[in-house]
Amino acid sequence: MSETTAAKPFCSVNIATSLDGFIARPDGAIDWLAIAEREGEDYGFAEFFLSVDTMIIGRKTWQTVLGFPEWPYYGKRVVVMSSEAHAGTHGEIFHAGPPAVVIEALRLDGAKQVYIDGGTTIRSFLAAGIVDDLTVSVIPVLLGQGIPLFGEGVPLAPLALASSQSFESGVVQMKYAVTH
Amino acid sequence: MSETTAAKPFCSVNIATSLDGFIARPDGAIDWLAIAEREGEDYGFAEFFLSVDTMIIGRKTWQTVLGFPEWPYYGKRVVVMSSEAHAGTHGEIFHAGPPAVVIEALRLDGAKQVYIDGGTTIRSFLAAGIVDDLTVSVIPVLLGQGIPLFGEGVPLAPLALASSQSFESGVVQMKYAVTH
Repeated sequence: MSETTAAKPFCSVNIATSLDGFIARPDGAIDWLAIAEREGEDYGFAEFFLSVDTMIIGRKTWQTVLGFPEWPYYGKRVVVMSSEAHAGTHGEIFHAGPPAVVIEALRLDGAKQVYIDGGTTIRSFLAAGIVDDLTVSVIPVLLGQGIPLFGEGVPLAPLALASSQSFESGVVQMKYAVTH
Repeated sequence: MSETTAAKPFCSVNIATSLDGFIARPDGAIDWLAIAEREGEDYGFAEFFLSVDTMIIGRKTWQTVLGFPEWPYYGKRVVVMSSEAHAGTHGEIFHAGPPAVVIEALRLDGAKQVYIDGGTTIRSFLAAGIVDDLTVSVIPVLLGQGIPLFGEGVPLAPLALASSQSFESGVVQMKYAVTH
């Protein structure tokens, strides 16, 4: 199959939230995810991450990740959603969007499995009807306030539960297909 | 045990939300709950409701319920949280709060199992540290907008997952103990 006839890449979201739907404290802190940390339990993340060839992340996620001791996306295509030009030092591609244009460029470039991360970016790709599956790991805590996963721009969308699993830590992981 | 030494009544929340945390559409409509309707499946509600001797509901929930063909709370004590006086026609008690005072009055009156319902009321009782357990049935849909379960006033609170169950309809029901 030539790249011009390749299928749209499959687009996944895989994220942890508090029961009240926050992905971070108001200042961006994710220290509370420690509640779910268990030796030898990664909630399926390594397997998921291996399956992915391409990351689409927001500018804030990108800047957070730049502060990590190691670049976590070696071996993946990385698209950073940003309306401004930035200097990427790990081969990142910067794109202002809209989401459909990003996905079309990735399709032509041979992307097959895309992992979309960051609250604003997730919402804009949900709004564009591009997200195929959505894995939410609910951490057993109410944060009360913080940065929400959903909200502004999220469309009305029926979901189909693909699986649900609970863990000793109290995490409940739900995987949904987004039915367009 | 005399009523003056009776224990604080056990306080439960039991509610359905969309995956994005809404309990109703912006206009209060709950038609989307039909997604989860299955012949012979009540998601444990009848058993839970039987166990309850007392309802605490908000004024909006009360006014909604008044429009039902039958009063749904026969045989239960009903406290309506309201800062204004209303005329109750089913023996309802009106109380302006705060939550701790309502619970103390219910304790003295012999209440054992309380069911707290309505978004504003749930949040104020969570904020007061009075909710003992929290059952959330996640309906497989993104509503995009609506009346949120959580938000304003919800405190930081660790939770302990007591059970998690998924259903053929795609509903995932999680029950948590609120650890004060």
